[in-house]
Amino acid sequence: MKKILVATGGGDCPGLNAVIRGIVKRASQEKDWEVWGSFEALNGLMEEPTRLIKLDDKTVAGIHVLGGTILGTTNKGNPMNYPERQPDGTFKTVNRIPWLVDRLKSKGFDAVINIGGDGSQAISQAMFEAGMPVVGVPKTIDNDLSSTDFTFGFQTAVQTASDSFDRLVTTAASHHRVMIMEVMGRNAGWIALYTAISGGAEICLIPEIPYDLDVLVERIKGRYNEGRGFVNIVIAEGAYAKEGTITASKGEFGRHSVRLGGVCFSLSQQLKDAGIEADIRETVLGHTQRGGTPIAFDRVIASVFGVKAMELVLAGKFGQLVILKNNDYTAVPIQEAISSYNVVDPHGTLVQAAKGLGISFGD
Amino acid sequence: MKKILVATGGGDCPGLNAVIRGIVKRASQEKDWEVWGSFEALNGLMEEPTRLIKLDDKTVAGIHVLGGTILGTTNKGNPMNYPERQPDGTFKTVNRIPWLVDRLKSKGFDAVINIGGDGSQAISQAMFEAGMPVVGVPKTIDNDLSSTDFTFGFQTAVQTASDSFDRLVTTAASHHRVMIMEVMGRNAGWIALYTAISGGAEICLIPEIPYDLDVLVERIKGRYNEGRGFVNIVIAEGAYAKEGTITASKGEFGRHSVRLGGVCFSLSQQLKDAGIEADIRETVLGHTQRGGTPIAFDRVIASVFGVKAMELVLAGKFGQLVILKNNDYTAVPIQEAISSYNVVDPHGTLVQAAKGLGISFGD
Amino acid sequence: MKKILVATGGGDCPGLNAVIRGIVKRASQEKDWEVWGSFEALNGLMEEPTRLIKLDDKTVAGIHVLGGTILGTTNKGNPMNYPERQPDGTFKTVNRIPWLVDRLKSKGFDAVINIGGDGSQAISQAMFEAGMPVVGVPKTIDNDLSSTDFTFGFQTAVQTASDSFDRLVTTAASHHRVMIMEVMGRNAGWIALYTAISGGAEICLIPEIPYDLDVLVERIKGRYNEGRGFVNIVIAEGAYAKEGTITASKGEFGRHSVRLGGVCFSLSQQLKDAGIEADIRETVLGHTQRGGTPIAFDRVIASVFGVKAMELVLAGKFGQLVILKNNDYTAVPIQEAISSYNVVDPHGTLVQAAKGLGISFGD
Amino acid sequence: MKKILVATGGGDCPGLNAVIRGIVKRASQEKDWEVWGSFEALNGLMEEPTRLIKLDDKTVAGIHVLGGTILGTTNKGNPMNYPERQPDGTFKTVNRIPWLVDRLKSKGFDAVINIGGDGSQAISQAMFEAGMPVVGVPKTIDNDLSSTDFTFGFQTAVQTASDSFDRLVTTAASHHRVMIMEVMGRNAGWIALYTAISGGAEICLIPEIPYDLDVLVERIKGRYNEGRGFVNIVIAEGAYAKEGTITASKGEFGRHSVRLGGVCFSLSQQLKDAGIEADIRETVLGHTQRGGTPIAFDRVIASVFGVKAMELVLAGKFGQLVILKNNDYTAVPIQEAISSYNVVDPHGTLVQAAKGLGISFGD
Repeated sequence: MKKILVATGGGDCPGLNAVIRGIVKRASQEKDWEVWGSFEALNGLMEEPTRLIKLDDKTVAGIHVLGGTILGTTNKGNPMNYPERQPDGTFKTVNRIPWLVDRLKSKGFDAVINIGGDGSQAISQAMFEAGMPVVGVPKTIDNDLSSTDFTFGFQTAVQTASDSFDRLVTTAASHHRVMIMEVMGRNAGWIALYTAISGGAEICLIPEIPYDLDVLVERIKGRYNEGRGFVNIVIAEGAYAKEGTITASKGEFGRHSVRLGGVCFSLSQQLKDAGIEADIRETVLGHTQRGGTPIAFDRVIASVFGVKAMELVLAGKFGQLVILKNNDYTAVPIQEAISSYNVVDPHGTLVQAAKGLGISFGD
Repeated sequence: MKKILVATGGGDCPGLNAVIRGIVKRASQEKDWEVWGSFEALNGLMEEPTRLIKLDDKTVAGIHVLGGTILGTTNKGNPMNYPERQPDGTFKTVNRIPWLVDRLKSKGFDAVINIGGDGSQAISQAMFEAGMPVVGVPKTIDNDLSSTDFTFGFQTAVQTASDSFDRLVTTAASHHRVMIMEVMGRNAGWIALYTAISGGAEICLIPEIPYDLDVLVERIKGRYNEGRGFVNIVIAEGAYAKEGTITASKGEFGRHSVRLGGVCFSLSQQLKDAGIEADIRETVLGHTQRGGTPIAFDRVIASVFGVKAMELVLAGKFGQLVILKNNDYTAVPIQEAISSYNVVDPHGTLVQAAKGLGISFGD
Repeated sequence: MKKILVATGGGDCPGLNAVIRGIVKRASQEKDWEVWGSFEALNGLMEEPTRLIKLDDKTVAGIHVLGGTILGTTNKGNPMNYPERQPDGTFKTVNRIPWLVDRLKSKGFDAVINIGGDGSQAISQAMFEAGMPVVGVPKTIDNDLSSTDFTFGFQTAVQTASDSFDRLVTTAASHHRVMIMEVMGRNAGWIALYTAISGGAEICLIPEIPYDLDVLVERIKGRYNEGRGFVNIVIAEGAYAKEGTITASKGEFGRHSVRLGGVCFSLSQQLKDAGIEADIRETVLGHTQRGGTPIAFDRVIASVFGVKAMELVLAGKFGQLVILKNNDYTAVPIQEAISSYNVVDPHGTLVQAAKGLGISFGD
Repeated sequence: MKKILVATGGGDCPGLNAVIRGIVKRASQEKDWEVWGSFEALNGLMEEPTRLIKLDDKTVAGIHVLGGTILGTTNKGNPMNYPERQPDGTFKTVNRIPWLVDRLKSKGFDAVINIGGDGSQAISQAMFEAGMPVVGVPKTIDNDLSSTDFTFGFQTAVQTASDSFDRLVTTAASHHRVMIMEVMGRNAGWIALYTAISGGAEICLIPEIPYDLDVLVERIKGRYNEGRGFVNIVIAEGAYAKEGTITASKGEFGRHSVRLGGVCFSLSQQLKDAGIEADIRETVLGHTQRGGTPIAFDRVIASVFGVKAMELVLAGKFGQLVILKNNDYTAVPIQEAISSYNVVDPHGTLVQAAKGLGISFGD
């Protein structure tokens, strides 16, 4: 009997359970493969005693509709830089990848499917280079991996944000307000951009396009002057103002400086400082975007990723990452996949289309 | 032809449009009644030129599914305390109710249906006492009117909050986090209480029950110690700690002192100050709770309220507020309705049931 | 240690799991009570070997958001009329209630909480009369129990139907069609009535008001003549035409005669036979109305019902059914509760309000 | 001032209004373009008097969230084969394209954007060949156009079907039933395939893979024998059995022979005839799949299609169809686009992945 270990690492993302189910469903069609899960990324394997669970058709029944991951996850304890207690009581950072590969083999595992983002796939690659047969499944709520057109979770986050936005629009219009909604995206503004187009925002602020406060103020005042007395703004948590365009608040509210409500809070203040007299209200969606049942689109991607990952294992193709490219499910070397990062192109098709819809980016 | 004026006042609330549609639909079955709407509460009538709109079956077609109000609304310019510019340029607060009733009559209105909360209904009563035939329709997202068992909008707010809560729970469980979700409710904790029961929260903090920080900390640590490493907290924006139970933060974070994230932000800080080491994440639902399409339950209440209000007008029963009491649609004198206020009873059935479900109120 | 047995009987209903969780959560606060579940109503107890499961906080974690029942259910094998195999191979119907009560006691059960509809509560009453301490929890998707204002599941069914209706309306309007949507309700038209009001239907057909086909035809033609070329119809599966009003189809399409699409199919044919030339499209919601996650309102009712049922057990108050009456959670004798049935009153407030909204019942 | 005419043709599809809004928003950024809409496809232009409407920012405000089309649509009166009344009272089919192009020019239109499916785009091409500057926007709920990877509406239909499926699964499991859900798809099984993967169906029947009844029966009985007593089936309305595999029902239930419940009804009967004893329940989603607010993904595609179409007009690139190919928005000649049709490949990636998930296609 051959054994495969599955782990989920990094932040939450709708669809993780559907990937796990896909792997197990496909594996159960083979006579000679067993699937095991490691709790909390690879920690379940690294600890003594181990915390592993055998996964079969019954364990995964119905889990594709659930958010989160039945295996739990963690952001701590990267085995490439593991804090190891020294005899003198201090901690030293060590590379535990070789030890990890030995442990996997000593526990009888023939392969690993590692589901996770950049950090997790760097571990996948390191394990692969250290001799472990590994297949990676990409996970990024931000849709910022250049090797795959879409990943599971992203469209669910956009849907959740868009639904909330729809709810805010009616209040904005009835009360003639400026509504600011902060969505995820520290470095990539995809969620904000898609939400702004889907929801019909007037303003969309993303990390890729620093905004000019004067431009925003002009746009907002213009709306009120032309008799349409409300403005809806989507802002990515990583958005920030151009150098020198904020005077009153400068120094006080830098990028990421206020975590709850983050830039959102500061934007509200910035607008007030700059003379916007309309009522301004903020909403911070926070982790609602990362949780909950995946939309159908994401369940399909995640389920197929799971099946594909298992088929790569069966075919003996390791060091590969499952992707969806040009509407086809295929794979690329992990090494290649994690070397480039996909942010919004300020001059690309989608931003231009958004501008065609009348959305201002404050530039 | 007889004319009726409809106005919507105060904060946004899902179902306002369904009330308007109900009034118009019922009125259109009479040969001799016309319905007019005043934009932005009664301001549309008070301004010169007036901003009024004739409402017929076509104007209201399909609006029952929309959030907000097609008439717009405002919180400003209460006619009972109207800021009137004096010859010397200063402002003086005057009671413009008599003037308002004159104006209504001079514009040919035979009756008014005023849809709104406490403040709006005080105006309804004042107009009624000044000789204007008025019928009131209650509106409170907080469900805090003692004369009616339910009003439209409340259950929609609870549903929106509960849906968001469901999304947070999966992340909390996967990441072993403390999740804090702030919902509406400055004086009444109904939305928080219903959401906590619906969502299966571990902790629910409401204005009616000041919390003891030590009790919260004990409960949270207990959860982690028994191996269920996550806690979900619903907090009403008006919740606050008991006197003397917060030391480090005292003075810094009073009730309502921090508006964005409000008490929520301070609660997160309070918990950290008190030694909670787990990751804590906050979500502030804000106005998403007040907007969007009403759930079916609220559409039914609102639509029937509209029909009932028009039937009171037809029957010549004025000074009345439409209510839903003991599962029946009826009416009470406005005067009686606005004299009492319905907050959560800390010893009542629902709080006891919530405790039976294991929900802690921090008391 | 005292033991209680929980069972769920009859048709599916969103909220069953929340009731189970409520019972277990409340019981877990007592030192001396264990909760057990019987699979497939009481069959799990009656079979040899038994199929019972011990329920604790972990078993019920998170189940309140799930549709269906973790205990399964069945419509078969009523113990009051149990088909018992005789020595000669034939079956005879016997009353196994006394045997059932003996078995409960011999298995060490001190009390039973029986969740179910009319049939299940008749069994509850019979067991109670035979000496078993029983508490009942009412379950009816149709909201047809007169002793309780609302039960869990009903509003979820209405919401599901209303959401589907909203989707149909846009197509009806764009294509100038007659849309017929069949909802549940063989004897009571509550789901149809609430859905019609919530959705803004033009026509609502329910079992309590037999329709006159000529009236429907006139209404439909009227809509097309006045330039609003579409009609949306909600029909309860038990609706039927008045005697003598259908000529062409009479005899062919009686009440309940065509199960898939039921009366709906026949209504479409009836309208065509009667000269309606517009495109007619049908949707049969079927069991989508009985399944899925309960809306927040129903989760609250169900959770509180569970806690209340356990508290009745603790207080030693048996032979009682938990109810929600006049906005308060209380209890009535089961005997009293199951003796009357609550259908839509053709002259009641809601039907009159619906007519005020322009909804025709074909009468 | 230059004028453009917009029309929407064929069946309903979530996203049509977002396309219209996209066109108008983009055009409003030009000084010299006016956008007009023709009611009910091109009929509004062809009739006398015309039924046209000028579209500006206010007309299209907020329509992107609405299902249907504000312009209405129709399946009747194809101008390529127009039934023209002859002097003797009979009708003759004539090609009115030349007349239509003349009429467009005489009414001052400089370009046409035609939103619609195969039939509509054939008209687009004919008008283009007759000298009219035309840009096409593809519309197909079935996702069966080979030139574009995705179109708006498809994912919304899948989401609606998947949501309904989720609701059925819980009842199936609790009651040990066979649930059959019929979705759209007469010739292409994409909606059924995506829904089956998203929902976790056991069986998926599509037009591209005729099913063998014996295979289905074996699969269903296998599920019950292994103790998992429920089966969920998704069936496209155009699915049908292989020749010779249905004996009892043969001749009675051919493909498309029973329209309401279509094959679904017959499948239920076929299974009963073939010895399945479990309860079988059917749901026919019908037009709920074509209506309602589009999901965010579809709103983005539709909005960008609208902007792109207008930009093609501005760039003078006619005879083109807007598409989304390889994750990029671009265009192809209409002629090329409508010449090939995209059905599910029985040996393609998605069907293989579905089989990997344990979904049987009855082959």
